[in-house]
Amino acid sequence: MKKILWQEMRRTEIEEAAKADAVVIIPVGSIEQHGNHLPVNTDINCCFSVAKSAAEIIDDFPVLVAPSILEGFSPHHMKYPGTISFKLHTYIDVLTDVATSIAAHGFKKIVFLNGHGGNVGVISSMRRKLMEDNGPSCVGYTYFTLVDEELKAISEVDFSIGHAAEMETSLQLYLQPELVDKESATWAPGVSGDPTRGTYEKGKRLFEAAVNTVVTMIQDYHSGKLEDALIPKRNTDPERRKYM
Amino acid sequence: MKKILWQEMRRTEIEEAAKADAVVIIPVGSIEQHGNHLPVNTDINCCFSVAKSAAEIIDDFPVLVAPSILEGFSPHHMKYPGTISFKLHTYIDVLTDVATSIAAHGFKKIVFLNGHGGNVGVISSMRRKLMEDNGPSCVGYTYFTLVDEELKAISEVDFSIGHAAEMETSLQLYLQPELVDKESATWAPGVSGDPTRGTYEKGKRLFEAAVNTVVTMIQDYHSGKLEDALIPKRNTDPERRKYM
Amino acid sequence: MKKILWQEMRRTEIEEAAKADAVVIIPVGSIEQHGNHLPVNTDINCCFSVAKSAAEIIDDFPVLVAPSILEGFSPHHMKYPGTISFKLHTYIDVLTDVATSIAAHGFKKIVFLNGHGGNVGVISSMRRKLMEDNGPSCVGYTYFTLVDEELKAISEVDFSIGHAAEMETSLQLYLQPELVDKESATWAPGVSGDPTRGTYEKGKRLFEAAVNTVVTMIQDYHSGKLEDALIPKRNTDPERRKYM
Amino acid sequence: MKKILWQEMRRTEIEEAAKADAVVIIPVGSIEQHGNHLPVNTDINCCFSVAKSAAEIIDDFPVLVAPSILEGFSPHHMKYPGTISFKLHTYIDVLTDVATSIAAHGFKKIVFLNGHGGNVGVISSMRRKLMEDNGPSCVGYTYFTLVDEELKAISEVDFSIGHAAEMETSLQLYLQPELVDKESATWAPGVSGDPTRGTYEKGKRLFEAAVNTVVTMIQDYHSGKLEDALIPKRNTDPERRKYM
Amino acid sequence: MKKILWQEMRRTEIEEAAKADAVVIIPVGSIEQHGNHLPVNTDINCCFSVAKSAAEIIDDFPVLVAPSILEGFSPHHMKYPGTISFKLHTYIDVLTDVATSIAAHGFKKIVFLNGHGGNVGVISSMRRKLMEDNGPSCVGYTYFTLVDEELKAISEVDFSIGHAAEMETSLQLYLQPELVDKESATWAPGVSGDPTRGTYEKGKRLFEAAVNTVVTMIQDYHSGKLEDALIPKRNTDPERRKYM
Amino acid sequence: MKKILWQEMRRTEIEEAAKADAVVIIPVGSIEQHGNHLPVNTDINCCFSVAKSAAEIIDDFPVLVAPSILEGFSPHHMKYPGTISFKLHTYIDVLTDVATSIAAHGFKKIVFLNGHGGNVGVISSMRRKLMEDNGPSCVGYTYFTLVDEELKAISEVDFSIGHAAEMETSLQLYLQPELVDKESATWAPGVSGDPTRGTYEKGKRLFEAAVNTVVTMIQDYHSGKLEDALIPKRNTDPERRKYM
Repeated sequence: MKKILWQEMRRTEIEEAAKADAVVIIPVGSIEQHGNHLPVNTDINCCFSVAKSAAEIIDDFPVLVAPSILEGFSPHHMKYPGTISFKLHTYIDVLTDVATSIAAHGFKKIVFLNGHGGNVGVISSMRRKLMEDNGPSCVGYTYFTLVDEELKAISEVDFSIGHAAEMETSLQLYLQPELVDKESATWAPGVSGDPTRGTYEKGKRLFEAAVNTVVTMIQDYHSGKLEDALIPKRNTDPERRKYM
Repeated sequence: MKKILWQEMRRTEIEEAAKADAVVIIPVGSIEQHGNHLPVNTDINCCFSVAKSAAEIIDDFPVLVAPSILEGFSPHHMKYPGTISFKLHTYIDVLTDVATSIAAHGFKKIVFLNGHGGNVGVISSMRRKLMEDNGPSCVGYTYFTLVDEELKAISEVDFSIGHAAEMETSLQLYLQPELVDKESATWAPGVSGDPTRGTYEKGKRLFEAAVNTVVTMIQDYHSGKLEDALIPKRNTDPERRKYM
Repeated sequence: MKKILWQEMRRTEIEEAAKADAVVIIPVGSIEQHGNHLPVNTDINCCFSVAKSAAEIIDDFPVLVAPSILEGFSPHHMKYPGTISFKLHTYIDVLTDVATSIAAHGFKKIVFLNGHGGNVGVISSMRRKLMEDNGPSCVGYTYFTLVDEELKAISEVDFSIGHAAEMETSLQLYLQPELVDKESATWAPGVSGDPTRGTYEKGKRLFEAAVNTVVTMIQDYHSGKLEDALIPKRNTDPERRKYM
Repeated sequence: MKKILWQEMRRTEIEEAAKADAVVIIPVGSIEQHGNHLPVNTDINCCFSVAKSAAEIIDDFPVLVAPSILEGFSPHHMKYPGTISFKLHTYIDVLTDVATSIAAHGFKKIVFLNGHGGNVGVISSMRRKLMEDNGPSCVGYTYFTLVDEELKAISEVDFSIGHAAEMETSLQLYLQPELVDKESATWAPGVSGDPTRGTYEKGKRLFEAAVNTVVTMIQDYHSGKLEDALIPKRNTDPERRKYM
Repeated sequence: MKKILWQEMRRTEIEEAAKADAVVIIPVGSIEQHGNHLPVNTDINCCFSVAKSAAEIIDDFPVLVAPSILEGFSPHHMKYPGTISFKLHTYIDVLTDVATSIAAHGFKKIVFLNGHGGNVGVISSMRRKLMEDNGPSCVGYTYFTLVDEELKAISEVDFSIGHAAEMETSLQLYLQPELVDKESATWAPGVSGDPTRGTYEKGKRLFEAAVNTVVTMIQDYHSGKLEDALIPKRNTDPERRKYM
Repeated sequence: MKKILWQEMRRTEIEEAAKADAVVIIPVGSIEQHGNHLPVNTDINCCFSVAKSAAEIIDDFPVLVAPSILEGFSPHHMKYPGTISFKLHTYIDVLTDVATSIAAHGFKKIVFLNGHGGNVGVISSMRRKLMEDNGPSCVGYTYFTLVDEELKAISEVDFSIGHAAEMETSLQLYLQPELVDKESATWAPGVSGDPTRGTYEKGKRLFEAAVNTVVTMIQDYHSGKLEDALIPKRNTDPERRKYM
């Protein structure tokens, strides 16, 4: 079985992947309170799982999953126990150093795949940030905004990712059921939406939709189609707009 | 006629506004190339104009427009002449210092009103950034995402704000026609969309839609409705979701 | 009429100015309390006005006025309403990023023209600061120290720029009389000097002296005479010393 | 079975642990080349495994293992593929933010447990760093220096931890044999010492020694004995000196 | 004989000085090329010597001389051998940390006494810098600008401090003649002014003038007269203006 | 007599030393409380004295002693009077700027020689820190760890350097007896070990051992033997290990 986790590879394996023009996904999430019923690693677990499954599916070129950046930017959750947050300036430096290190070994295509609402602004700024000093090219996406339409179709009450609510509870019931305390899966302060409506089935559907979308995005990135879509053009057709 | 521009006021006038629980809008944009036909201050001019008009309309409580932060985060436009860009770390510090200074004089409600796509991620992160050290409360919005539906309805070809294209050309034909070079209003490298379809009329419609939306947002902020919408709740009804 | 304001220009116009070896003036001032009678933009208004008039007068080569950096370094005025101050580290980064961006488009001659006492030390350090990483050449001057002799001759009581006093009140009565509250133009805490002695006529004289001096300085900078004066030499004649 | 991994816990579980005066271990290591035969996560895997085993053994009070800080300070390994390194300033901020976040939830006893030679200086400085702004108390140790005597006794050729050599190869043969490429387990550039002498048995002995020593250290920290040892005293007896 | 050098004192002696409301002088200069004839410590030697002599003269209250901050801000001299320069941001942090540490021990009156032209802007900004976070009060002066009139009277050719020229050569012939290479005391690149006119006698006169002026300044600072002069007032009489 | 102190040299002398491939020692210590009996410059005095003596002894190639960096990283001593401490980030920048400046003049071999326990971690990290941006090569050692065996042999009660105790008191009785208050040379809070056992003779022996060891280290650095020892190798023989 092919290896996809950077941290489990040896330097020779990583060198080969770079030579084969691999795409490297950096999962970014958070360690933060998710109500009384979900583990604090919910965000990073969701997006790491999407990244891993997407990487496993793609066979035409190597896709590596870099070590997850577990903590994110979560000052708004610090008042609840369990949250570990980087300062904004620290977080930007963390993302910069990791991407720059990866690029230093010859990788040309880096994807930040995000799973935490509080990171969205930072992640979407990293492409420009790395341009400041002629750093490597990268793209950054948040898995649940990539599947916003599917999410709205699957959701019965929240119609957004919310926080520790219908959809994240569903995803965790699918991905890490052993860490979910079903008895406390009700609304509590710090929860945005309705956890009682979370189900394994909804989680499975959203997860699979996210994996499929990320697979396509990575294929488009590797083929040059995504980079091409990001270049200013006269005709901003819908296909291009989905990556803007 | 009432004064709304912070920079034209005297300390006593500003002190009175703080006592009257004024909302302070900080216009943030960019100085960057906008094709061959639009001035480099297009982004800041658009959002400053929206801020100013909205402030003039509201009569129930004072609304001040703080000095515009003219330059923004535009490393992706640096290869074209005229762009002046802050580094990402600098920009975050600029926004922090300005908001913190305003709050130091007793203002409790600060709105970053943004007009530049490259700033969106940073501006949306400022609320959390100021939480890091128990700083003041603020909200941050981008005028053209606040009126995304109206924009899609008005636009004939781009259906997004693009860059120096149909909609920004329209806005500048309405707001600063003397600075637009109509003869060169065609697509050129660095333009995203189709400038040839810009018209005064489209600009007027989008501008007025933006002003109306910002007026409502400021009223909701002042009344506490917007802050309330930002608190995690079980029921994420559509009214709340528009501010999330 | 020729265009001189960077922010109102299009990228093609700025590109042409760079090719024509334009001098770029960056007005730097402050947003800070100026007693009960003057607007908080007094400092930046004074030096922007000087910069603009000087740029209009010079015809032999293009002179552009970059977007004003409105806020400055004013922690000593924060206890009075209306002051917006950058932290010292922020301010240095702001000045660096703006000058570096301008230089990136090919401009070789950058002038920081300052109007705020609290900025003097920072502005005078920027030439060396930009040397640190082989950045662009620049010079920095404060308009009222450039005309210290004329100021002493015009002043009847203060004999220095003071703060919101005889001379700044005079300048604002000349430049922005509609923003001056003449009734409160007396000494108050936070004022340094005597505002009651401010007159339109004194303001006009000091302003014109400043414009003339800045015109000469810019001409000397463009011709190489000023840069030459800054090179260490055996003979430190008075002509050279005025720029040291 | 008791939960010890912070990232797998829910906010209520973490809150309880804080109330019970838990010790929190933060494993810190590196992602860096380890010759041609060991995975790049060798350092963090070794010290995370020690931390986890030690936490499982202690029953008198709760011990949590915080999310590992995977990357470390490894500029000296950047020339070999696979290394991901933080800049020194970034790394200090990362460690500070994580420890400060943990302390914010009421934890009083934080241990940085390090597995990477390049981090030793930084980790040993964190106790003083957190003092700078009256931050939380912490201690920092490197697992292999805590068992330096045992290591010298077990080792046959290197007598030091080296890099990817006798002892680290032994530890990985014990902890992650599936990631070790035994065929390439010989000296290569970037290796310090002799990997051919690594054995499962040596790894097991060193690992168990490290776990035992860390268990004692944590017990001493929880009982106050270690903190007491760090206070300057007249009598620097050997028992105290082992923690200095 | 009384002790004045902080670094030679014991903690009990420093504690007593703080209780006695001592003034603490921090000598700041540079390590930089001073032509072919003067040692690289010329600037810091001059101002340390002034500080030490002034401290020895004052008997009414204790005056301590803190450890000299030897290096300064000298990027403009880096192209000549021997110059050691701090980056601007580093230098500001150095000055902040030293002043903050001194204030932490109860000292209320801190004087930065500067001897290097390149530091003037930074030193004059430190009073405001320390205000940013409610830090200690301080004042900052450059010895040769405090005696500008005397300097002009003593000088025969330069009429300014220049660099490694008439006046600095004179001071070093008086203070450290053993480090001056008289044979090479002529103009050379990097020298500003005329070293050939330096004499022991001129050095002695300027030094004594500087010591006297600094003695008065310190006495005024200790008595509150200088602090009072720095408060904005209506009447900016000449006595006050000398400290502005 | 040959000159060894950088600060007393002229630019031409320093240029010559660089051409002759001189080793430059940067003494780093602290200004911090050392009980009631030792001066606050104890740490920097000890290591500067070692550096100076070592430099005087070596005749085969020039050895310069750069200006001492007097203050160090001492937050743990701030609660006692007299301590002046850099923040950790500041200290790293100070060391970086000084080493970088020295290297800019062509010096290839830089030694940080440390005398303060609190600096050990930082100093040992500087070699890697300078690698981050392809800066100069350097090594960093602490004099008392270089002679740990000799220290243990000389010491009668402490068997470690402690703080202001047996061995530092001995060194100061040898190096600066006039600044030691023998009557208060007993244990007091903030002292680690037993000052009463300090003697001139022990100080002389430890000092001479340190000088000899540093002489050898510098000779090994100059000959390339030390640099060679730092390169990862298969055979980590004891000779190499002493420099690891």
